[in-house]
Amino acid sequence: MKPIQSAFAVLALVLASLTTSQAQDDPLPSWNDGKAKQSIIEFVEKVTKPGSPDLVPVPERIATFDNDGTLWCEQPMPVQLFFALDRVKALAPQHPEWKTKEPFASLLKGDLKAALAGGEHALLEIITATHAGMTTAEFEQIVKDWLATARHPRFKQPYNACVYQPMIELLAYLHANGFKNFIVSGGGIEFMRPWAEKAYGIPPEQVVGSSIKTKFEMRDGKPVLMRLPEINFIDDKAGKPVGINQHIGRRPVMAFGNSDGDKQMLEYTQGGSGARFMLLILHDDAAREYAYGPAKGLPDVKLGAFTPALYEQTKKDGWMVVSMKDDWKTVFAFEK
Amino acid sequence: MKPIQSAFAVLALVLASLTTSQAQDDPLPSWNDGKAKQSIIEFVEKVTKPGSPDLVPVPERIATFDNDGTLWCEQPMPVQLFFALDRVKALAPQHPEWKTKEPFASLLKGDLKAALAGGEHALLEIITATHAGMTTAEFEQIVKDWLATARHPRFKQPYNACVYQPMIELLAYLHANGFKNFIVSGGGIEFMRPWAEKAYGIPPEQVVGSSIKTKFEMRDGKPVLMRLPEINFIDDKAGKPVGINQHIGRRPVMAFGNSDGDKQMLEYTQGGSGARFMLLILHDDAAREYAYGPAKGLPDVKLGAFTPALYEQTKKDGWMVVSMKDDWKTVFAFEK
Repeated sequence: MKPIQSAFAVLALVLASLTTSQAQDDPLPSWNDGKAKQSIIEFVEKVTKPGSPDLVPVPERIATFDNDGTLWCEQPMPVQLFFALDRVKALAPQHPEWKTKEPFASLLKGDLKAALAGGEHALLEIITATHAGMTTAEFEQIVKDWLATARHPRFKQPYNACVYQPMIELLAYLHANGFKNFIVSGGGIEFMRPWAEKAYGIPPEQVVGSSIKTKFEMRDGKPVLMRLPEINFIDDKAGKPVGINQHIGRRPVMAFGNSDGDKQMLEYTQGGSGARFMLLILHDDAAREYAYGPAKGLPDVKLGAFTPALYEQTKKDGWMVVSMKDDWKTVFAFEK
Repeated sequence: MKPIQSAFAVLALVLASLTTSQAQDDPLPSWNDGKAKQSIIEFVEKVTKPGSPDLVPVPERIATFDNDGTLWCEQPMPVQLFFALDRVKALAPQHPEWKTKEPFASLLKGDLKAALAGGEHALLEIITATHAGMTTAEFEQIVKDWLATARHPRFKQPYNACVYQPMIELLAYLHANGFKNFIVSGGGIEFMRPWAEKAYGIPPEQVVGSSIKTKFEMRDGKPVLMRLPEINFIDDKAGKPVGINQHIGRRPVMAFGNSDGDKQMLEYTQGGSGARFMLLILHDDAAREYAYGPAKGLPDVKLGAFTPALYEQTKKDGWMVVSMKDDWKTVFAFEK
């Protein structure tokens, strides 16, 4: 053998032994042994094992993840709403008219319920007042500065520490198996990008979300993008497959969510040919996180964020349902 | 040394020798030696060499490329317009009303000039009639089928063979140096994706372009995205930085174009901090490709697709201008 060949021969042996020992390591240590964990590992092995009839080529290994309630905590209310409320308070001195103008007047009095009584219109007013009127770079800095000091009201942790440890392991496991992970969230794309890479290993170009319009302009001779008070796209419900097609241009092979807002994303994923994997997370753990959702009295499960109709659909369509209480050994890394 | 360490030691030597021999190979063999080629290689070495003061971390190595006239030939008219005209002819039997309805009547008589006399409105009619009303999967297949048989009128080659060999080498060179290459084109995102991966090594999720709206729906129990006769986004001129921010979420480090439609993309790229590289291709080679553009009589260059004002800007802002005639040894692979 030439030197290069002998080097590769030795390397092959070393790699083979590493692979074996790696397979013995548990890639999902925060998951309890059970049907959910087993089904994930079986699926990934099935679509990645050379020679498997279900093998999916690396470029087609796309996995999409909802964010709120799927990758991080969305209770007692979505993090972006905490951000918006803090921004209203911070901006109030520049807006004396807010003292008498709804929904701001109620917000500033701390009456969230009254503020949101105006429905979608009120929410839109809050979003545009707090998310528009600056450059994209300025907004990124505002989000970073806020995250550095804001704390979750119950867990007393930075919001970006309130991410689900089992899902962090899942993202890493899929990435190690050639998957490209995308966030596909109803939340703001520019609200997630500043911290998603560090928290999840998901770079900005793999974040899909709702957005407001931006406009290119020269400001003081510098080319910037100004954020306009106008909705561009709502990446929720039937918008999720649209956002996936627009950004990714392929159907996901795996899709993960936790609510009715993710239904169409999972349906769209399942509609592709070949092996597909769909999973919903059930928030049934009031002790370590939250138990929530509209349903009561279902025979075999305390329903979390999704409706009874969606729960029926998971059974009919063979979607995996993860019980946070039963399937997750650890919920947050800070528990340990 | 343990076996694993000795294997890595041997491997390190092998890799070092491979790296040396690779550096001696010319990564851009279809480029003539000259200022353009030299500036590209110098820039890439500067931003990738460990310890360089201009080092750009791998995740931030984003390069954006216009498509028409930058990666493939856009003369005698943009390829997507050839596609639209062929689709009008193919669909005409299902649309007897087109015989008397503009712009279709003129198109079917072969009078392109009269058809396009209706300006933007006429173009929009043609685009929606040929690009909407089917699922995204159906449209992808229509594009693939058309490309398989259509031929460039002058070169008698499939359109996706009329790609610029020097740019194919540049894409591969940047990719090998840790860059993520994106197309950022005024052309249709769904028109480019079906062939861009094979032609350029650029996957669908790295294609940014103009788009029409799509709608998620169940058709015969199958989840599909229907293409609607409504413009969603025009990814041209000031739209390019907007599209870049929406899809990529970072400023490019390198940007490549060939026309006034790329001006804002290059300005936006240059506006970032740290080392940036901007390049425009000048179509001045009537013998091997085309020489075109509005300008005459500039002292040192026959102006291609861009205006005199943009040419002045390249000098003022230090953007590289590539002469196809002088800087490219080969234009198309099929020349060889």
